[in-house]
Amino acid sequence: MHLFYTPDISGSQYELSEEESRHCVKVLRLGTDDIIHLIDGRGGFYKARIVSPDARRTILEIEEHLPDYGKREHYLHVAIAPTKNIERFEWFLEKATEIGIDEVTPLICDRSERREVKTGRLSKIITSAVKQSIKAYHPVLHEPVRFRDFIHLHSQEQKFIAHCMEGEKSPLNTRLKLKSSYIILIGPEGDFSPAELESALKEGFVPISLGTSRLRTETAGLEACFEVNFLNR
Amino acid sequence: MHLFYTPDISGSQYELSEEESRHCVKVLRLGTDDIIHLIDGRGGFYKARIVSPDARRTILEIEEHLPDYGKREHYLHVAIAPTKNIERFEWFLEKATEIGIDEVTPLICDRSERREVKTGRLSKIITSAVKQSIKAYHPVLHEPVRFRDFIHLHSQEQKFIAHCMEGEKSPLNTRLKLKSSYIILIGPEGDFSPAELESALKEGFVPISLGTSRLRTETAGLEACFEVNFLNR
Repeated sequence: MHLFYTPDISGSQYELSEEESRHCVKVLRLGTDDIIHLIDGRGGFYKARIVSPDARRTILEIEEHLPDYGKREHYLHVAIAPTKNIERFEWFLEKATEIGIDEVTPLICDRSERREVKTGRLSKIITSAVKQSIKAYHPVLHEPVRFRDFIHLHSQEQKFIAHCMEGEKSPLNTRLKLKSSYIILIGPEGDFSPAELESALKEGFVPISLGTSRLRTETAGLEACFEVNFLNR
Repeated sequence: MHLFYTPDISGSQYELSEEESRHCVKVLRLGTDDIIHLIDGRGGFYKARIVSPDARRTILEIEEHLPDYGKREHYLHVAIAPTKNIERFEWFLEKATEIGIDEVTPLICDRSERREVKTGRLSKIITSAVKQSIKAYHPVLHEPVRFRDFIHLHSQEQKFIAHCMEGEKSPLNTRLKLKSSYIILIGPEGDFSPAELESALKEGFVPISLGTSRLRTETAGLEACFEVNFLNR
């Protein structure tokens, strides 16, 4: 299946961008009446026929439109501290997209060694994972937000903070309400600071554990995605 | 915590290798009476005191020995086709070690693009993940085995094959008996061949699915580790 990401699609015709036209005609060698598929990143899955193949502007006729393709009954937002080694964070974004995630916010914490990320490059990684795993919904990647600001900004029903400090924690699966929306906070390599944990608890975040293994930041983030999607199957 | 992997440990004293002696004395700057911890990879977790710090041969006194440290009641063997891009396979080994796995066999399949791996290098990746996640059990990495040979070699109680072809498949969690031993087969980028699937079914492997998403080989392998460990918590 030849899949293209076309967030600006509307109506019964679509013109591929110059880059995708080249890919379509020069790389895939597709021509008139060949069928390709499109996703708009908002749940729309389209079957399209090439009416005018052109290396600069290929015109498509939309033949079929499936809305809400693969729609889930839950919503997952993970706010996670970008790792010192950005490859680990990129890996998290790719795998979380495959497993299932709706929103990602890079969280800048007291102990964050990395305080900025190039969201443009990271979005490309998400997009290729979206195409590879044939998802009609494109996860939203936000610009980095400071922890202190973020904990007041969430809009999900259930909110959790995963940390490695002592104190009362419940396994995520024992607190998760199904078919709900979730925000889960994952700290940096050095964990959240006690002050951050305290302020999150004051905001009503539920402290959780993600199993008994000591997990790296990016593995903890993926474990959270896995548990949420697995339990909501 | 300073953790060293010492598979050849025995008795009440231990001499660190030259490499680890250097790391201990030159890098960590540890000296007489400093405490370090050791794991033997077979469940043994040790507390040791440095009695003779030396950049070439540091001598330790074992002060405490915890056997079966973090022992699980289940056993997981994943036989998985190494990915064309070896980094994806290395990533799988690191994450599977963090999440929990006992044995890995690189599987050479009809459609495998990669037919050999450097197990020496891959074992080092597993070892550093073992130390990072403080595991006393070191997963065993086997030399690559051809699919046809492997399906006769398994010794686990429950055996599964995850594939993307049509046909009857059960979600892994619906077939999993808890506190058992499992072998799970994960195919290459192009999936198993129909002939391979058929011969596995003849051998009594149960065809399973790992959720509804289309997962890359290394993600499918990790999803299997997630599910087995999560369900056995």
